[in-house]
Amino acid sequence: MNRSELIEKIRERRSFLCVGLDTDLAKVPAKFLRAEDPVFEFNKAVIDATRDYCVAYKPNLAFYECLGKKGWESFEKTIEYIGNSHFTIADAKRGDIGNTSSYYAKTFFEVMGCDSVTIAPYMGRDSVEPFLKFDGKWAIVLALTSNEGAFDFQFQQLGLGEERLFEKVLKKTASWGNDGNLMFVVGATRPEMLTDIRKIVPDH
Amino acid sequence: MNRSELIEKIRERRSFLCVGLDTDLAKVPAKFLRAEDPVFEFNKAVIDATRDYCVAYKPNLAFYECLGKKGWESFEKTIEYIGNSHFTIADAKRGDIGNTSSYYAKTFFEVMGCDSVTIAPYMGRDSVEPFLKFDGKWAIVLALTSNEGAFDFQFQQLGLGEERLFEKVLKKTASWGNDGNLMFVVGATRPEMLTDIRKIVPDH
Repeated sequence: MNRSELIEKIRERRSFLCVGLDTDLAKVPAKFLRAEDPVFEFNKAVIDATRDYCVAYKPNLAFYECLGKKGWESFEKTIEYIGNSHFTIADAKRGDIGNTSSYYAKTFFEVMGCDSVTIAPYMGRDSVEPFLKFDGKWAIVLALTSNEGAFDFQFQQLGLGEERLFEKVLKKTASWGNDGNLMFVVGATRPEMLTDIRKIVPDH
Repeated sequence: MNRSELIEKIRERRSFLCVGLDTDLAKVPAKFLRAEDPVFEFNKAVIDATRDYCVAYKPNLAFYECLGKKGWESFEKTIEYIGNSHFTIADAKRGDIGNTSSYYAKTFFEVMGCDSVTIAPYMGRDSVEPFLKFDGKWAIVLALTSNEGAFDFQFQQLGLGEERLFEKVLKKTASWGNDGNLMFVVGATRPEMLTDIRKIVPDH
């Protein structure tokens, strides 16, 4: 889904809402556990109930991978069931050296048919760029995350200036892509940072 | 495999060698492509030929995931075929917020039966710690990677001192674990850094 299609969906549905699909079998109501594919059946119920109110769905891969190949099957079926009416985010936090990142990009964009995938920036440019080469597909790079551990490295001050690591990540990464193939993760637990971050990447 | 078992294997086989299993179907000899599971058959041939000369195997997940659930099956079969005689590294470069990282740890350590998994440090402590809680299992944290992109963030100088981001990652991460559950990735393309890094983490 490209930028203008996504903006159209947002306008049409008057919503920015993204629904997480972090389907944890330990927390799913018992009635779904009797299904052959409980993860998919639960997701289906969530999707059916929310379709009209949201523009995006975000399954986190950890909850699917922990079920082995059966989990990947549930993931694939979920993405297919969502279809083209909504933007899909594979929350997978991938990132590897160049040629290997290309295979991850192929996995999520071509094999699984997702619109976007979340990316960890630690390995730098050649780990991010392979995700920027697919038409209508997006890399969503971790900048400032919502967890306590964000303070360990992301807030580290760099050199003599005022810049912190997450700001460097935003600036540098933004120069590798554009507002049609690159988004950023900024945790909603840090609303006080959003204005400053908007200044660095106004159109992403 | 715990620390003393690993050291025993190294002594016994007089080898530090780790064999990568980055099985790219575009590069595998044609005869394997006729097999029902070409990735596994190729891996099997590599493992049979190298078993006596190495102590570890390292499949990179990107090459398996890009084949969807069939790829995960090949990965599972490969780990099982290696067995307990060798140390196994799932080169997956995972990392997410705490509860989600726990599911990734469960995936690779319990479901897949790997000895270790590579971890991206950007999200900090709560993204790494869940991998340190399994007996005889290891987190291998990215410190200084071998690719060109390592210069983008890993070499960033922090604050007023001499410390660079990768050194901060080594020091901080080392304080979360011990030499029985934590290793580090240092690219062999940077041999000139190894002495300094050894000083920071002498026993890892």
